[in-house]
Amino acid sequence: MSLFITFEGGEGSGKSSALRLIAERLEKEGIPYILTREPGGTPIAESIRNVILDRNNVAMDSRTEALLYAASRRQHLVEKVWPALKEGKIVLCDRYLDSSLAYQGGARGLGIDKILEVNSFATEGTFPDLTLFFDIEPELGLARIAANANREVNRLDLEKMDFHRGVRKTFQELAARFKDRYVTIDASKPLEEVVDDAYAAIKSRL
Amino acid sequence: MSLFITFEGGEGSGKSSALRLIAERLEKEGIPYILTREPGGTPIAESIRNVILDRNNVAMDSRTEALLYAASRRQHLVEKVWPALKEGKIVLCDRYLDSSLAYQGGARGLGIDKILEVNSFATEGTFPDLTLFFDIEPELGLARIAANANREVNRLDLEKMDFHRGVRKTFQELAARFKDRYVTIDASKPLEEVVDDAYAAIKSRL
Repeated sequence: MSLFITFEGGEGSGKSSALRLIAERLEKEGIPYILTREPGGTPIAESIRNVILDRNNVAMDSRTEALLYAASRRQHLVEKVWPALKEGKIVLCDRYLDSSLAYQGGARGLGIDKILEVNSFATEGTFPDLTLFFDIEPELGLARIAANANREVNRLDLEKMDFHRGVRKTFQELAARFKDRYVTIDASKPLEEVVDDAYAAIKSRL
Repeated sequence: MSLFITFEGGEGSGKSSALRLIAERLEKEGIPYILTREPGGTPIAESIRNVILDRNNVAMDSRTEALLYAASRRQHLVEKVWPALKEGKIVLCDRYLDSSLAYQGGARGLGIDKILEVNSFATEGTFPDLTLFFDIEPELGLARIAANANREVNRLDLEKMDFHRGVRKTFQELAARFKDRYVTIDASKPLEEVVDDAYAAIKSRL
């Protein structure tokens, strides 16, 4: 059966590692799935992404950015997510709509409802069937990244702590608002336990 | 005084020629103005435009396209239109919001209100003070283009006649809906008369 599952969370939450391990479990069980993330290798969405990420585009307004993410999301849905769901596959997607809500709507201050509205034009109401929110203290998440990259937490990481706190707070609000599709995973636990918790949530929906 | 004036109409309506002649009259009268069109030479809006116009992007969904136009519009407003209005200039803009409403909302069938909604996020309610709609029969407009380019109206032009009729019909609906800012110019008249009519509409707002 088809199921649209999104993996959300702040920096260093381990969601991408968990996603890969969950894909391995589905593989072993012979359950058809795709693993993707925006822009997902679709050339149009990639070229939109290049505009967003171009370091020369420092003058980019935050609403321009939000519209570009929505455009890239739309194209990724049309070319990749919807076809896979139609084929009865499980779609494991690393970040989706809720990242725009948390980062741009919440932390950047554009407002959740405004970002929802723009994205409803892009998604035509395609919400995930299940959103796994990998919740972790921003301090711990950033420390993990620092440990992984074999470096100290730098000045930039520290300066942005309020931003990361805003992201987490918004995800928590979204989990309360969309409780039918949200499952919050304690991402401070060891990765194997995190994967067990996430996999249990997925299996209960199959 | 600042005034945001947009020039709208179908193919071959002569609006761009009229715009240049109006700019010359403002110049002679010493009235400060800028002449622009999206993406207006702003690098970010240009790079968005390149994604839209890339002939390789045949798989582009019409909603993706609408979001990209809105993104490009946003950046053009932020970097070019708003600063010029703030400096007290007249902004003469070749196409704006209403082209998205007529082409994508009307003729492409996405719906005027949906395109309005997405664009209200982009524009934060910046409507033109005056929209000059250069109204012309699509057959006449296309014949003008054909005459200019020194070629016959081709199969493609003919096949798309319904599309051009849809564009015109939507502009006429918009003129009725937004009658405070719309002035309809009979663009079938000789260019000099068209420019006189348009200039009179502008002068009455100054």
